[in-house]
Amino acid sequence: MGGDHGPSVTLPACAAFLAAHPRAHLLLVGRPEALASLPRGLDAQRCTVVPASEVVAMDDPVEVALRRKKDSSMRVAIAQVKDGAADAAVSAGNTGALMAIARYVLKTLEGIDRPAIATQIPNARGGATTMLDLGANVDCTAEHLLQFAVMGSALVAAGGRENPSVGLLNIGEEVIKGNDVIKRAGQLLREAAERGDLHFHGNVEGNDIFKGTTDIVVCDGFVGNVALKTSEGLAGMIGAFLREEFGRGWYARLVALLAWPVLMRFKRRLDHRRYNGAALLGLRGLVFKSHGSADAFAFEQALRRAYDAAEARLLERVRERIAHAAPLLAPVAADPNLTPNG
Amino acid sequence: MGGDHGPSVTLPACAAFLAAHPRAHLLLVGRPEALASLPRGLDAQRCTVVPASEVVAMDDPVEVALRRKKDSSMRVAIAQVKDGAADAAVSAGNTGALMAIARYVLKTLEGIDRPAIATQIPNARGGATTMLDLGANVDCTAEHLLQFAVMGSALVAAGGRENPSVGLLNIGEEVIKGNDVIKRAGQLLREAAERGDLHFHGNVEGNDIFKGTTDIVVCDGFVGNVALKTSEGLAGMIGAFLREEFGRGWYARLVALLAWPVLMRFKRRLDHRRYNGAALLGLRGLVFKSHGSADAFAFEQALRRAYDAAEARLLERVRERIAHAAPLLAPVAADPNLTPNG
Repeated sequence: MGGDHGPSVTLPACAAFLAAHPRAHLLLVGRPEALASLPRGLDAQRCTVVPASEVVAMDDPVEVALRRKKDSSMRVAIAQVKDGAADAAVSAGNTGALMAIARYVLKTLEGIDRPAIATQIPNARGGATTMLDLGANVDCTAEHLLQFAVMGSALVAAGGRENPSVGLLNIGEEVIKGNDVIKRAGQLLREAAERGDLHFHGNVEGNDIFKGTTDIVVCDGFVGNVALKTSEGLAGMIGAFLREEFGRGWYARLVALLAWPVLMRFKRRLDHRRYNGAALLGLRGLVFKSHGSADAFAFEQALRRAYDAAEARLLERVRERIAHAAPLLAPVAADPNLTPNG
Repeated sequence: MGGDHGPSVTLPACAAFLAAHPRAHLLLVGRPEALASLPRGLDAQRCTVVPASEVVAMDDPVEVALRRKKDSSMRVAIAQVKDGAADAAVSAGNTGALMAIARYVLKTLEGIDRPAIATQIPNARGGATTMLDLGANVDCTAEHLLQFAVMGSALVAAGGRENPSVGLLNIGEEVIKGNDVIKRAGQLLREAAERGDLHFHGNVEGNDIFKGTTDIVVCDGFVGNVALKTSEGLAGMIGAFLREEFGRGWYARLVALLAWPVLMRFKRRLDHRRYNGAALLGLRGLVFKSHGSADAFAFEQALRRAYDAAEARLLERVRERIAHAAPLLAPVAADPNLTPNG
């Protein structure tokens, strides 16, 4: 039901997804009237409609989504994961509500204080950099950043890249003062690397995200959100300038026609829709978030990402990584001389 | 002496600058041997060579630059400002060293705890967004962000845009928890706006920087540095992709030749060299920082920016703005019932 377009986008995406994944089965959660007539490809053998009487609006406050709309499509979908009826949930709805409901219904994994949002960003190496957190956590401790690094490593390894490198987002060495949280996170990440919990590259700067210096970039949610949205703004401006210059006068328009195949190849390389589908990590179940403005192609990518993650046992991988790193994640519990009250 | 290229870039830039500014006089600070033979246009009537025996290296730690190199070109140049021999100093050298030396030699203005670095970023409206801080301050209080807003307003007003709008960089409303510093900064900025200290637009997000939603975007130095460097990384990647696609095969190369004037117009609109020259604000003197990799054209822009700021009485404008906002900047001192000890 979610996103800017609702079923008019999600249903065609589901049909395309099922056509490409013969073993997949979808639970379509939403208002029965919206799911009464399904497009071709979404027959009863491959799809089950799960009714939900309410819908979380894109601008609903978290409290409303969580406390008042107890039969929302979002909540019912996540409950399918909790009950074991679904291996993963995908939503294009309100991010804050999705995170809050997922956290409430599924709970966080042991050793994880706060779930994080991880997404892929295309990089100059032709691959993608996985970045987290992207807005779920605005004030982070060093331990939180370590948790993000561990979970991000599990996510990227599940995607087929074993032993992925982790970069800690920091600012230029020329800057006078470091940030204490970042310095301490660097220490923790070095310790984690020595223990074999993950592969720590060291500090990276903002430009390393698009360079693809590391497979994973870890930062707090405020910084991650600003970096991502700033990039979206810049990409939008550059695209608009390019269109304007190729539309300015008859000569430019003629050249644009001739350059069409070149410009389309260029556009395809930057197509952020291919990377749609952010993972909510640290929960006792798989939940993926599609961009609210996703079209059918983009939403299908989010479905694929969720499917691939379930196939690659992402949840177990996250659990295993966290268990391995447990002494660093919860140093108090690891020291028998220290108890929470002592 | 500074920057990646030293006098081979700065001296031609100085000559071009003087040619365009008949009333300007330059003090060229550096090693006498490097300034022994000046290019045409830099004659004794328009230039004075001020000798300095040392040079701060781009990778010198701040302590070395500050304590060991007491006769560095950077320090001598800033001393010219302090002594009233120069109206502004411009350097392409080590940012951290420049800030530390400027702070040590010039001191901060009354009411300002920490100087900030402000730069212009081209926006989709065809103008530029002024952003600060960009890395001088990694952990900021709400009061620091207010100080940045006040100083940024003075800078943009000195550039000819009276009553510029200020945006506070924040993350999407869909996010669960706000950041306490940002919330409190928002309150302070609203109070400042009510008192007529500045024009506060409200919160902005990362994409608003390039949209040009506000004239000024205020953030802490960590976030500002990451946003700027992330943008540089993305712009570099997009440029590389565009060059690659227009160089792939004979057809694309032919089209690139035909599209050359269009692509050059596009490139010019994004030319960050035009915006070179960041202001170090909050000091008792004008100091401007050129990008280390600046070419002669870019360095000349930094000189122009410093000249224009001095002409527009930037220092007095900053002082006046700070004096006006003083009650909010230092609430303890403004309340006679409260003393620092009570």
